[in-house]
Amino acid sequence: MEYSSSVLAKAVNEFAKLPGVGEKTALRYALWLLKQDKEAVAMFADSLSDLKDKVFHCQRCNNLSDTPLCPICQDTERNTKQICVVETIKDVMAIENTDSYKGVYHVLGGVISPVEGIGVGDIKITQLLSRVKSEAVEEVILALPTTMEGDTTAFYIHKLLEHENIKVSALSRGISMGEGVEYADEQTLARSIALRQSFDEIYKH
Amino acid sequence: MEYSSSVLAKAVNEFAKLPGVGEKTALRYALWLLKQDKEAVAMFADSLSDLKDKVFHCQRCNNLSDTPLCPICQDTERNTKQICVVETIKDVMAIENTDSYKGVYHVLGGVISPVEGIGVGDIKITQLLSRVKSEAVEEVILALPTTMEGDTTAFYIHKLLEHENIKVSALSRGISMGEGVEYADEQTLARSIALRQSFDEIYKH
Repeated sequence: MEYSSSVLAKAVNEFAKLPGVGEKTALRYALWLLKQDKEAVAMFADSLSDLKDKVFHCQRCNNLSDTPLCPICQDTERNTKQICVVETIKDVMAIENTDSYKGVYHVLGGVISPVEGIGVGDIKITQLLSRVKSEAVEEVILALPTTMEGDTTAFYIHKLLEHENIKVSALSRGISMGEGVEYADEQTLARSIALRQSFDEIYKH
Repeated sequence: MEYSSSVLAKAVNEFAKLPGVGEKTALRYALWLLKQDKEAVAMFADSLSDLKDKVFHCQRCNNLSDTPLCPICQDTERNTKQICVVETIKDVMAIENTDSYKGVYHVLGGVISPVEGIGVGDIKITQLLSRVKSEAVEEVILALPTTMEGDTTAFYIHKLLEHENIKVSALSRGISMGEGVEYADEQTLARSIALRQSFDEIYKH
């Protein structure tokens, strides 16, 4: 599209770099910003610059944090003997949202994917191993995606931890809550039969 | 959602103010930015600040511009005797995109809408009238939305220009190009029968 203002065109161009944002949406964002007052736009711009200046990775768990140790690692109420291994910080947020886990986390920052060229060295697996060795960990819970890449990564970590004398578990697989059996995909259904759980076990939770 | 970084939370909060952006999308944008290098993020942030510092409204037609007069008003090749009246600069872009109009524009910046409290004084109607009086205009083309508000505004402008001895026209109404007749809505279909055009006229264009 042709823009009568090159400054507007530049802002649209920047917005259009965001994932899933096309030129029309980018223009909508830029025109919306143009209507806001100067202070609001400055605050918006500053909050973005701050992202690169003030956000770090937690030294222990690799979660995002404003401080060397993230709030979860700093929290003395958390059970440091349980480490939940996740792919991204979005997974940490999702699990925290459930309010049903009181252990700590380890954010890998990705999963092994030969297709995308992500190898063992590109994600925080070594750091997980040294935490297990040094932090008196009792259980590692693998909360990785149920994809080929996620399963490969889980299997790799499981192998690494085999001789560490700790419990290695993974999130349960099965039918979603509120889902009709007929709507579950074949693979999930087959697995949920094979991995069927004791009735008492399920209704206790 | 809970964020382990307040700086991240702030950026997400800012993104979520954009029209049509919810918290999940805002988080996706912020995390994407976090992965870019510092220079790219600085460029993004600067382009937003520039919006309020360096973009103005064209003194003549109210289009957005980096200069007092927009590129279209500066272009000596354009026919200044034709003024196309539009609601927003998006409409200017859409019409420019067709490459079939060589006149100039007048951007009202809105349409009359009692429901939203937008009156005659809130949009650039007075400025249009003074342009018509001072610029030797021969035709005003109303390219306003085909809504009640758009039609009201068009009617109001038409009334104002009644005694100016110029041609006042409006975009033709009818079936969209490439649209099956059965899919046109009733109102459009009824109008396109009432406003039917000569076969020769249509196929000439």
